[in-house]
Amino acid sequence: MQPIDFQTEPSRYRHWRIELDGDVANLVMDVDASAGLFEGTELKLNSYDLGVDIELYDAIQRLRFEHPEVGAVVIRSGKDNVFCAGANIRMLGKATHGHKVNFCKFTNETRLAIEDATENSHQRYLTAINGTAAGGGYELALATDHIMLVDDRKSTVSLPETPLLAVLPGTGGLTRITDKRGVRRDLADWFSTVEEGIRGKKAVDWRLVDEVVPLSKWAETVNARAHEIAAGTDRPKSTGIKLTPLDRKIAANAISYPHVSVELRRDEKIGYLTLHAPARAAPPSLPAAHALGPAFWPLALARELDDAILHLRLNEPDIGVLVFRSEGDPQAVLSHDAFLAEHRADWLMREVHHYLKRVLKRIDVTAKSLVALVEPGSCFAGTLAEIVFAADRSLMLVGRRDGDNRPPAAITLGETNFGFYPMGNALSRLQTRFFGEPESVDRAKEKIGTPLDAGEAFALGLVTLAVEAYDWDDELRQQLEARASFSPDALTGMEANLRFAGPETMETKIFGRLTAWQNWIFQRPNAVGPQGALKLYGSGVQPNFERERV
Amino acid sequence: MQPIDFQTEPSRYRHWRIELDGDVANLVMDVDASAGLFEGTELKLNSYDLGVDIELYDAIQRLRFEHPEVGAVVIRSGKDNVFCAGANIRMLGKATHGHKVNFCKFTNETRLAIEDATENSHQRYLTAINGTAAGGGYELALATDHIMLVDDRKSTVSLPETPLLAVLPGTGGLTRITDKRGVRRDLADWFSTVEEGIRGKKAVDWRLVDEVVPLSKWAETVNARAHEIAAGTDRPKSTGIKLTPLDRKIAANAISYPHVSVELRRDEKIGYLTLHAPARAAPPSLPAAHALGPAFWPLALARELDDAILHLRLNEPDIGVLVFRSEGDPQAVLSHDAFLAEHRADWLMREVHHYLKRVLKRIDVTAKSLVALVEPGSCFAGTLAEIVFAADRSLMLVGRRDGDNRPPAAITLGETNFGFYPMGNALSRLQTRFFGEPESVDRAKEKIGTPLDAGEAFALGLVTLAVEAYDWDDELRQQLEARASFSPDALTGMEANLRFAGPETMETKIFGRLTAWQNWIFQRPNAVGPQGALKLYGSGVQPNFERERV
Repeated sequence: MQPIDFQTEPSRYRHWRIELDGDVANLVMDVDASAGLFEGTELKLNSYDLGVDIELYDAIQRLRFEHPEVGAVVIRSGKDNVFCAGANIRMLGKATHGHKVNFCKFTNETRLAIEDATENSHQRYLTAINGTAAGGGYELALATDHIMLVDDRKSTVSLPETPLLAVLPGTGGLTRITDKRGVRRDLADWFSTVEEGIRGKKAVDWRLVDEVVPLSKWAETVNARAHEIAAGTDRPKSTGIKLTPLDRKIAANAISYPHVSVELRRDEKIGYLTLHAPARAAPPSLPAAHALGPAFWPLALARELDDAILHLRLNEPDIGVLVFRSEGDPQAVLSHDAFLAEHRADWLMREVHHYLKRVLKRIDVTAKSLVALVEPGSCFAGTLAEIVFAADRSLMLVGRRDGDNRPPAAITLGETNFGFYPMGNALSRLQTRFFGEPESVDRAKEKIGTPLDAGEAFALGLVTLAVEAYDWDDELRQQLEARASFSPDALTGMEANLRFAGPETMETKIFGRLTAWQNWIFQRPNAVGPQGALKLYGSGVQPNFERERV
Repeated sequence: MQPIDFQTEPSRYRHWRIELDGDVANLVMDVDASAGLFEGTELKLNSYDLGVDIELYDAIQRLRFEHPEVGAVVIRSGKDNVFCAGANIRMLGKATHGHKVNFCKFTNETRLAIEDATENSHQRYLTAINGTAAGGGYELALATDHIMLVDDRKSTVSLPETPLLAVLPGTGGLTRITDKRGVRRDLADWFSTVEEGIRGKKAVDWRLVDEVVPLSKWAETVNARAHEIAAGTDRPKSTGIKLTPLDRKIAANAISYPHVSVELRRDEKIGYLTLHAPARAAPPSLPAAHALGPAFWPLALARELDDAILHLRLNEPDIGVLVFRSEGDPQAVLSHDAFLAEHRADWLMREVHHYLKRVLKRIDVTAKSLVALVEPGSCFAGTLAEIVFAADRSLMLVGRRDGDNRPPAAITLGETNFGFYPMGNALSRLQTRFFGEPESVDRAKEKIGTPLDAGEAFALGLVTLAVEAYDWDDELRQQLEARASFSPDALTGMEANLRFAGPETMETKIFGRLTAWQNWIFQRPNAVGPQGALKLYGSGVQPNFERERV
């Protein structure tokens, strides 16, 4: 298969259209069945694969950045009689385990991004379902704030995965019906086992949709509801910024962007990512930042890092460890942090802030070991220090290396390390880190703005190890070699548990509980064996299940 | 393999000893290597299998019921130089996937029972580690309230599963180190990847143990600490009750106890459980209840139901659905509920209450579909009504069947349905059920004590379906046939998600997040394939891992 590219733009979309109508955008799903990612997989009935989801993700991002004037987004179907049939089943039957898992993860992240837009950008999403919304199709609707279903005696919502495919409604479905929609658990059980789904008033009574609308009033009601919702936004009627194509170069063993460079050491199965500080301090004014648009450093960094992480996940499965480094002036990073905080009421700064938050969350759920190296010349300050706290472990060099005249490594904390970028569990990375000793968060907070050398950072518990220069290379090699010797699966499971101490949210339940069960099922013969339901779907042959309950 | 029997008693123990010392009990692990459950599996170095855990569970139960005078329990090793090496690896390598999963689940339940004893019975557990506490051995210690480690330069605690076995510290380990012990996540990561473990002062600094004690002062310090802790209990210096052997008959297709009968319809893969109400009202006085001892109905029911569920899980994997029925006088059930509530300050009533709670929780995490049938002559009132709310769905018969002169089915709610038996998520079953509509809990509460017929129960949302007598057989058959046609794995995953709406606790994280990842790993070739670490352990051959990160 070709490498999967997460970069696209509306003129290249094959599956979605953005139709603007003043303060409302219609996001129309109209999947080109012939344009699936996998050869020979026809995306019938608005079923989707990763390629469809990549366009959806792009559209959601652009609506936030390019269209401040849009207060409500209606997800709807461009086809008659079907809203969306969910993830394409032939694709699921053919895809490798790794592809399925990463596809579902990205889909979940995209749906959470819809909820994030609603909650934090006040660009509220609603769904207009005319036709069948099955499986992932209904799960997509569940990510929106308001679900409308046409009452035409045939349009339904359904989660037929269990009865039909022997897998779960795993892109948030099972979690959202109980935890977000508040569907009673026995009705949720019932609903998740009837292939044909639920329609009409019962769908409202069971809390599956918010309203059913007679066919005769459908178009006007959807329209009215969308404009009503849009009217409640605080987004300004101004012009957005254009998310221009990334300046990206992909070579055999390297990927480079202006602020992120990736070096792949394939023999070691390690990817080295270096994050570059901005060349100068924050712009002098808000209009100047707007004028920079996608070149505004925090936004540029977010886009590049986002793309790099997604690329590494999908296209470089053998890279098991990501080593994060940084280079540049920490004061320039902090200056941008201060700028973001100062102007957080501005719609664009708000978007940049929440985008950085989402990219950091994407790192948190990436199934690769994360190591941060804090070295002389690095700029792990404020926003970039979050990377150190996102890492599974971090090494900081004490003093200087021979012949290196750059200042010794320092970490500088900022306000941004204390709640600006919550993790999925709703805690800051430092709160999660110090879950058992909240007083350590307070101690760290007292050091805001002070460059902390290796000894201080270690004493404050901010890094795992402080390593003398003469030991550095050996220590690092040892650690990375050890990591490389472990089972990648055990590491994935271990990291998924250790990274999320403390409370859970709907978001962490989706990644931790629902996803883990789905991944289990995605390996079971009853789903993917030669007689499993995913393999046999559409063949006319009934699956033959092993009946043992595990 | 022989059917696994969960019933035992101290005189039959092969692996544990209870040594009483006034208000302290020493629970000594001294595994008989030759007495493993699986032939040819030597349980060296105090490693354990399900058989060892069954004795531990029995000991914990008996300490609560038979020894009210015991305020502290010290878990310690009867061997030199080793505390416990964890789950036996040969056993894990040989066992079926289903056995591994159910073994881990039972182990987790037993460890939670230790925490429940500490928290709710004020019988506090501590661990005295002299020697190696590795993997499951340290996980056992984590379940206790206070961990002591001898400082002899060789005794260590460790979680070597990831580096050594390519699986997780899956019986609570990963969750407890971050969420209960508050170990910093990067130190937790470090700790979970060093085979040799951590010893001495560092183990305290990292929050892995509570104190290290010099070898010269070991015995006296452990002893002193145990008596100190025991002194703080509110348990009385009275005599316990004896948990006499269960009156149980196992036939080919039936299991019967005085208050629980199980009928196995193997062709349908369904187990029918009938719960019998007490023959009469609660005893006239607390002394009378104590005199009844294990014959006191709530305790007898708990023990029988506990045994039946465990038996069905381990010995009847092909039984995919459990259908719960009840028979008898609901007033007799409610009378016992009232008695338990009235005397909840009594140590024995407190034990009975929390035991019922634990058995209900065991049902909640049982990987079989749960259906409750509320029919004429049934007694789903108070405590027994919890079974209806634990079920994935419930059917209630409207009116009477032809020729049946028993009163129509009714559900009677009691105070016990509103917080007396919290689920693992710390909510009552009704709060979980009505997670999206808390006002329905209030509506139900107004009906305490009123027998609710099918129409009322349905209107209140207490049952899934109210079914007319003439439709009953067809409806039930249809539903059970549909259930039987689904993939058992998809049902397991679906139920594990839908049963736990809302908040998570350490307990639900262990069953939902940690267990799900472990089950995933337990199927991956890197663990259980012919070149996987679990299979090759001890052979001298290094595992050959698939390097792909999923």
